[in-house]
Amino acid sequence: MLKRICIEDLKNYYGQEVELQAFVDNIRNIKWVQFVILRDETGKVQMTIEKSLEENKDLVEIVNNLTTESTLKIKGKVVENPNVKLNGMEIIPSSIVVTSSNVNEELPFNYKDLNNVNLDTRLDYRFIDLRNSKNAFIFKVQSSLIKYMREYLYNNDFIEIHTPKLIGAASESGSEVFEVKYFDTKAYLAQSPQFYKQMAMAAGLNRIFEVAPCFRAENSNTNRHATEFTSFDIEFSYINSFQDVMDLEAELITYGLKHLKEELGDKIKELYDIDITVPTLPFPCMSLKDIYKELEERYGYVVDDSEKTDLTTEAERLVGKLSKDKYGHEFMFVIDYPADKRAFYHMRNDEGVLQGYDLIWRGVEITSGAQREHRYDKICQVAKEKGLGKDVEFYLEFFKYGCPPHGGFAIGVDRLTMLLLNIPSVKESQFLFRGPNRLNP
Amino acid sequence: MLKRICIEDLKNYYGQEVELQAFVDNIRNIKWVQFVILRDETGKVQMTIEKSLEENKDLVEIVNNLTTESTLKIKGKVVENPNVKLNGMEIIPSSIVVTSSNVNEELPFNYKDLNNVNLDTRLDYRFIDLRNSKNAFIFKVQSSLIKYMREYLYNNDFIEIHTPKLIGAASESGSEVFEVKYFDTKAYLAQSPQFYKQMAMAAGLNRIFEVAPCFRAENSNTNRHATEFTSFDIEFSYINSFQDVMDLEAELITYGLKHLKEELGDKIKELYDIDITVPTLPFPCMSLKDIYKELEERYGYVVDDSEKTDLTTEAERLVGKLSKDKYGHEFMFVIDYPADKRAFYHMRNDEGVLQGYDLIWRGVEITSGAQREHRYDKICQVAKEKGLGKDVEFYLEFFKYGCPPHGGFAIGVDRLTMLLLNIPSVKESQFLFRGPNRLNP
Repeated sequence: MLKRICIEDLKNYYGQEVELQAFVDNIRNIKWVQFVILRDETGKVQMTIEKSLEENKDLVEIVNNLTTESTLKIKGKVVENPNVKLNGMEIIPSSIVVTSSNVNEELPFNYKDLNNVNLDTRLDYRFIDLRNSKNAFIFKVQSSLIKYMREYLYNNDFIEIHTPKLIGAASESGSEVFEVKYFDTKAYLAQSPQFYKQMAMAAGLNRIFEVAPCFRAENSNTNRHATEFTSFDIEFSYINSFQDVMDLEAELITYGLKHLKEELGDKIKELYDIDITVPTLPFPCMSLKDIYKELEERYGYVVDDSEKTDLTTEAERLVGKLSKDKYGHEFMFVIDYPADKRAFYHMRNDEGVLQGYDLIWRGVEITSGAQREHRYDKICQVAKEKGLGKDVEFYLEFFKYGCPPHGGFAIGVDRLTMLLLNIPSVKESQFLFRGPNRLNP
Repeated sequence: MLKRICIEDLKNYYGQEVELQAFVDNIRNIKWVQFVILRDETGKVQMTIEKSLEENKDLVEIVNNLTTESTLKIKGKVVENPNVKLNGMEIIPSSIVVTSSNVNEELPFNYKDLNNVNLDTRLDYRFIDLRNSKNAFIFKVQSSLIKYMREYLYNNDFIEIHTPKLIGAASESGSEVFEVKYFDTKAYLAQSPQFYKQMAMAAGLNRIFEVAPCFRAENSNTNRHATEFTSFDIEFSYINSFQDVMDLEAELITYGLKHLKEELGDKIKELYDIDITVPTLPFPCMSLKDIYKELEERYGYVVDDSEKTDLTTEAERLVGKLSKDKYGHEFMFVIDYPADKRAFYHMRNDEGVLQGYDLIWRGVEITSGAQREHRYDKICQVAKEKGLGKDVEFYLEFFKYGCPPHGGFAIGVDRLTMLLLNIPSVKESQFLFRGPNRLNP
């Protein structure tokens, strides 16, 4: 692998000549000396050029013509210098090559101070916005968290599959599906890999996951919805009940947060002032009914019975508080939702009680999970009751020739990242947000 | 995590009572005894029920009504028995629960012998097709290979990002892009994450990768093309030339194959009769011109000069042979393609020579890689020469405010899997193939 010295490594090279490549973060060109602050994804360092030295003539000329945000390849000596505020070191260059030029010295906005910058402008120039080290760090955190979540699953005999996003029928609910011109016919974009995850169960693949885009044609603007988002989807067989699904999810999240904290906890604290809490197992779990009762008793939160078939946004928020106050925990499983409000493929027990759950983290829903209905006669019956027609016929086939009991869940990666770092909106926790009014860049 | 005993674990449980969940692979119901062969993703085992025993009365009744391909949850004792051909063991059950029933005893086809089964029928019933253990194993291999390739990248400071698949402009080449109805306007499906990978470089993210679907509206039917496929995409900054890109790719593939072989080499040998060859570094590399010269000298392969701007399919195949014969190697980098035949974002040197390559494995192209043109004036000039208009304007912006030198490549995961296991077509190495005439299931 291409060996490269990053700025954070420089402390190991005092007195040595190194090659360094970086952005020009800032230039101060004063009477006797030029200071160039270099920046890479690991930090910043000062390069110092004494103008009076004959050997520096060419370097001085280069820096005279240099613009900030250009990129350089330099060779230079790493010198410890307690007078330099930035890391107490500087680089004395012997050569400088400009590898790219910022041809417009004026940036569209000052990414170092985003307080007064309109979010739309930031998103229009996301490649500038992400030069802000705090913003760029979001994606290091997201990548690490997903890495550890995958690691947990690999350790437990899961495999990752890749299901198609182009589908022949508008699944689940036709109204929120994007339509694609597909040669002489139409295709649709998958809202979730749900049907295909379950197909893998019917095929006997047993334990699978997928991290992939999902598409929802919802014309709504909230801080937690996007028309395209990354979903971490899991499905596994031979479960005894949806309790097994909740247990797996709790372990998965705990494993992910624990290892993320070990790797990046200090930097998350430094940049975001957030202490990651590694949750304890098991996660607390309450029924929807008990939750509404307790929200009323504890916090005086009263809603009409007609709204109690699901958590209102405010109830969700209060569940975050309830979980903290009652259990000292950031997570809460909510169970016993009315079955008729949920997707038809979620299992109901003989009393009609949904065999599924939502998971709330810090007052926001991050998952729906369930045992699925795997019995052919039952799933056909529910599909019929719900008036689902031809579009689900192919799906019902999966259960005709034997299919093990199974369940699973999905976690929205962007929403998870948003909550983890307390970012105000998925517009900022997605690499490139997609919404009804945003398809660019 | 839900503890579960798999069939391959049973040898560690002789004399013990275990709980097992599995498909019914076969039933033999003879005068004095019932044999039920159970199957999970790790293997098969025989369950034996003596009919004459009073305590077995209920079990015998269950098996009398049992259909193959149903699923069971059983409890039973694991007994060593050299008379049983299958693993020299059997299970004597104390309880059997039918967890799902194959309601149509007759399967659409016999997945255990696919020789005479039409591929389209198999794909129509992919969930049956994948009950064939050799077919199911493809996805374990694919998952493992990707796992190790990711591991290599994580170890080298890469992060995984998730770029949008819904895009506002038909990138690269309008003719092969799927169009999406997007509220009151149109969107397109990304053919590759190319532009966004490069945007990450302009943002300073430095080393990124993505494993995600790509979409190509090509109305062609070959064994290696699909309208949707999984692409393993890599991009990284601060390279000195495209040699760095080739070096990284060679190391990545070598690392992946080495660890895959350690984990699954024996089983790949058993099921596919393939010995994975861990390649040696560096991979051989030849110019396009020298290759055509040598193909003619060695194998008498002659083509018209007009065809020598690229590798013909036959030349690709022969490069596989050449690499073996000349270097004892399965891989070959091919360089020095005429620049005007390649994507506009590939860098050309001052003599107009393309700073990119193709990688051939066993006679099939698996990658194109290159250093990218990162200099604003140059990339604008090439875009103009190629007549690219408004659709790439947003992309050209990425290079306006400084962007480090960078390069990258993409590997088709399905094609890689196909070659690895010597599968005849991507139709079989994709979990669910998508082509001009196939959108289902």
